[in-house]
Formats: sequence, C-alpha cells, structure tokens
Amino acid sequence: MVKARKYVVKRHFEGVPKRDDFEIVEFELPSLRNGEILVKTEWVSVDPYQRAYNRRYPTPYDQFGFLVGVVEDTKNPKYSVGTRVVTHKGWCDYSIVNPNESSTMSNIVYKLPDLKGQSPIHGLSSVGMVGVTAYFGLLEICQPKAGETVVVTGAAGAVGSLVGQIAKIKGCRVIGFAGSDDKVNWLQNTLGFDKAYNYKTANINETLKIAAPNGVDCYFDNVGGEISSIIMSHMNNFGRVSVCGSISAYNDDVSQLPRVPLLQFDITMKQLKVEGFLVHRWLTRWSEAFVDLSKWLLEGKLKTNEHITEGFDKIYDAFIGMLAGENTGKAVVKI
Amino acid sequence: MVKARKYVVKRHFEGVPKRDDFEIVEFELPSLRNGEILVKTEWVSVDPYQRAYNRRYPTPYDQFGFLVGVVEDTKNPKYSVGTRVVTHKGWCDYSIVNPNESSTMSNIVYKLPDLKGQSPIHGLSSVGMVGVTAYFGLLEICQPKAGETVVVTGAAGAVGSLVGQIAKIKGCRVIGFAGSDDKVNWLQNTLGFDKAYNYKTANINETLKIAAPNGVDCYFDNVGGEISSIIMSHMNNFGRVSVCGSISAYNDDVSQLPRVPLLQFDITMKQLKVEGFLVHRWLTRWSEAFVDLSKWLLEGKLKTNEHITEGFDKIYDAFIGMLAGENTGKAVVKI
Repeated sequence: MVKARKYVVKRHFEGVPKRDDFEIVEFELPSLRNGEILVKTEWVSVDPYQRAYNRRYPTPYDQFGFLVGVVEDTKNPKYSVGTRVVTHKGWCDYSIVNPNESSTMSNIVYKLPDLKGQSPIHGLSSVGMVGVTAYFGLLEICQPKAGETVVVTGAAGAVGSLVGQIAKIKGCRVIGFAGSDDKVNWLQNTLGFDKAYNYKTANINETLKIAAPNGVDCYFDNVGGEISSIIMSHMNNFGRVSVCGSISAYNDDVSQLPRVPLLQFDITMKQLKVEGFLVHRWLTRWSEAFVDLSKWLLEGKLKTNEHITEGFDKIYDAFIGMLAGENTGKAVVKI
Repeated sequence: MVKARKYVVKRHFEGVPKRDDFEIVEFELPSLRNGEILVKTEWVSVDPYQRAYNRRYPTPYDQFGFLVGVVEDTKNPKYSVGTRVVTHKGWCDYSIVNPNESSTMSNIVYKLPDLKGQSPIHGLSSVGMVGVTAYFGLLEICQPKAGETVVVTGAAGAVGSLVGQIAKIKGCRVIGFAGSDDKVNWLQNTLGFDKAYNYKTANINETLKIAAPNGVDCYFDNVGGEISSIIMSHMNNFGRVSVCGSISAYNDDVSQLPRVPLLQFDITMKQLKVEGFLVHRWLTRWSEAFVDLSKWLLEGKLKTNEHITEGFDKIYDAFIGMLAGENTGKAVVKI
C-alpha cells in the first residue's frame, strides 16, 4: 500500500482563499487495476483558474490542477516505470490514473512531450496547459498578422509571457503590462517585448498614446478590470480581443463584480470582436501546439521563468502568492 | 434654380443635442450635370447613429441620414423622373446626387426595392438600413439556431422589433426588453415575441430566471449599460452577443462612459463571443438581405410600426424624441 497526501477544498472561498479552506488528507492508495499507473508527483502547478472554478464544484472536492510526475508502478503496457507523465490530479504527492480513460481535461493523462533534456517543469509551462492557452488563445482568437500591434496584460505571468513571445515570433509589435518594475525589465530585456509598463505606476491611457500611436490590433486580456476598458478604447477597427481571464475579479463575489467603464461603445464603433475561451476547447489539438511550442523552446525563441516554491506543505502559499502577482513566469511547486 | 433646405450641425453635441446645435440653411441647388439626379425628399430618417457619430465629423457638417425621395429631374438615363430612390443625403428637402458615384454609405444612392404597393416608408425601415442592420447583425454575428433563446434590448425600437421577428422566423424563442408597458404589449401581442418586459419596472435578473430557464444563447444588444451585464450573466456556454449599439451611452462624454459590472468574467467562463458591427460592413450584400426582408414583409411575417412626425421643421424634435425612446418602431419624418 502506498500512502498519499492531497489537498481537499473544504469550503468555498470568500475573497482571498484561506489556509483553512483546505485540508491536507492522508490516505492509502488501493492496488493498481489493469490499465492504471501509479504516479509519483514531481511538480505541481498553481494557476488562476483554480481560484476561478472554485464555485463550480460542491465542497468538499479534491483540488484539481496539473502535475508532472513519474510512473512508479504500472499495469499499463504503454506506460512503463520511469515514464514522465502529465495529469490533472491536482495537489497530491501520489496518484493512480488510467491513461485508457483519459478523454477530458478532468481525467487527462498524457506522456510528457520529448523535451530533449530540458527540465520536465516545461510540461507545466511552455509545453503544457499554459503554453497551449497562450498558443490557441492568441493565434486562434486574435489571429494576429505580422506588423500588427498586440497588447498583453498580466504580461509577466505564465500565460502572458508566452503570449508576448509567440506574438513576436509571428512578427507583431508587442506591448506588455505587468505589476512591478522588475517584471517590466524582464519583459523588455530578456523576453524581447517592444515595450513594457508597470500598470501600477503608469498612466495607461497616456502610455498607449505613445506606445501604440497607430492603435492596438489585438489584445490578450488576462486581467479584466479598468485597464481592459482603457486598452479597448485604443483599439483599431476590427480589432480582436482574446479574453483569457479576469484575475482582477476572481477574489470578488461574482454577483458583485467590479464596475468598469462600459465596453459596448468601443465594441460597436470599432466593430471589435471580443471572445472568451477555456483551453479545453482545443483539447484534441493540444499535441499540435506542443510541436510548435517545444520547437520554439529548443530553438531559444521561447524563454521561460519559473517561480519555484519547494515542499508539498507550501502549495497553499504558492497559490496565494500567484494570485497576488508575486510570480514572474510560471508558478510551480517542487514536491 | 431649385431652392433647398438642409440641417447643418454647427457644433458638437454635449449631452442631449440642443436645437441650436443645428442651423437650417437655405441654398440654391446648381444645375444638374451628366449622371446626376434631383431628388425631392418624401421621408427622412432619424436614427441613433446620427447621435453616436457626431464627433467623427468636424463641424459644421451637413446632417447625414437616410431619406426616401422621388426623382424630379434627371441627367441619368437609368433614373427616370418619378423613380423612388434611397440616399444618405440627410435632413434636407431637395438634393442632387449621382448614382454613378455611389459606392460607400456616405454617398449611397439606390432605387427603392419593389415593395409591391407597400408604403415607401419601408425603404427607411424593414427594407432599408434598419432592416439590414437587424438581418445581418442577428444572422451573421449571432448565427441563431432554431430552438435557441434570443434576447433583444431596445426591442420596440426600429432595429430591435425586426431582430425579434427575424429570430422568430428562424424558429427561436424570443425575449424582448423595452421601456414602456405599451411597447411590451405591442411586442407580445402584435409582433409575437414569446416574452417582453418593461426594463424600467422589471427586475431583470429575476425576470430572466423565469423567462429563460435554460439560459440565453444569443443576445442582440442595442443599449449597453447595466442591463447588458445582467443579460450576459444569463448566457449559455458559447453564447453569441451582437453589439449593435449602446444608446444608453450616446449622450455621455465618451471619456466618461458609464460604469457597469465587468463583462470579462462571464465572457471567459462561458466562452462567449461578443462582436460589434456597423452595417456598412455588408454594404455590397444589402440587396441580398432586401430580397428576404421584402418577401417576409409581403407575406406578413414582418410587422412594422412607424412613429411619424410631420414637417421639415420638426426633424430635430423627432430626433430628440427617438433618442429619449418615445418611438415604437421606426422614427421617420414626413417632409
């Protein structure tokens, strides 16, 4: 018998999730059945959607989320011991999954793409759910053309930092907004964003007049809130907005959403297209994106940064830190 | 020489347009040149976009807008005297236009479609710009399927009343919001909306729980504002929103837009597609829509109401009344 630990959400979050909204549960895993594999977690992912989806599940529920792990025992001939896999089993140190029954995001299991010796951490970032979120969210919804101006908010976050780099690969001019001067430096000096600004200190409206004198063609919106209304007022006719998230609102009561300047005026006058997405929409096409993403990663065209927290007991802290914007790049926890 | 009169906008509107923002100018029309026709106005249209586009033009400018008129003199062999035409020459009683140079909405001239004896007023409503706005705005952007639930705001307005009826023709369930009990009665009892509500007295949220228990699939947004945020919170996954206007905000300073609950949360979580449009986007396809619209009109499937004001001097009053929601159906002025 293998002893495992997992985080269980005991009650729905009110505002910022509290430590005692979670309980760490120890339990014994059963023996493997045919088709199943035992996965020892190496890396756990903390992501904004873990906050946002909280009320979709009746409590108590096992905290979901992506992890990279190693097959430690197997009753599945396609998954030998030592194989690295990605699953959505959440904040746990051991788990049993069945790759034969993997069809939706909630029970997904797949072999980590071949990263040619790069750290398996990329299975949670550039060549994982975060990578495909940036890839499809930008390319499918915004359909950016070379020479166009792309704006990204939450630009130093896991998704945002990849969006900006993919837009550069596609020949766009890229402007990012992030929450600290260090992040701004990283975006401009390491990732090659054309311009980056600290949204906490910049006058967004004046900044965009200078940074995007010909207007904004594509906007990848990670945050919602006031800044999005201002950016949309700078968009060109037939601009496209990909709405990936609204992290500015996740800690609020959904029935009490923040009030922001009305968007419809600009949406009509400029014939904007604003579309939200959840990345499991393209689940059957993730592997297609992984081909491009791992190629760009190995070519050095995609640079990543991981904000690493160590220790199973520290997952909660990593999660809260990520929600508060402490991470630059992908927030992960080493188990 | 023909003496003509026209409304000139002398200064940009602040809030509700004032009577003395306009000046009525009398002038002499020149002789016709080859290709030109002299049009005597019969009906003039007043529309929300005449308010919304105000700041796009340097003042003074001739007030634009659609009119139906009769060719009174001609130097164009394709347009004989007595032909009824539609132009965008605005608030004037006589005008000279050249159908050979008609290619954009600003200089558009076309023969009124054959209405089989129905009033030429339909050239400004169901078989005019308003009709194609409803037709393409609903069908191209929302792509409603039979059995889906469609919500329309400004439902008793010129565009909204047609949107609801087209949605019914397409087999949808239709819910309308309008600003008086009389309008609500007209929508339910004459136009065949499944449900209609007075947004000034109804609790929108509770109303939609009852009227759309299975959620909203398509929303045709004429008004923007708080009501739109609430309707979008009732939408189903992959819902489509066609943003035709934001009349609630046209009288406000664009830099001081009203604040409404943030839309991004619902847009992301439900993967909504929100698209604004201006109807000249489909200018080359208007005649295609006129075929369906005039067929439906003659079959009695499209019922219309015209809010008629009489007299060239009263165009301003008709315009202000329309902006204030006094009209049920299309607001027009008989010259």
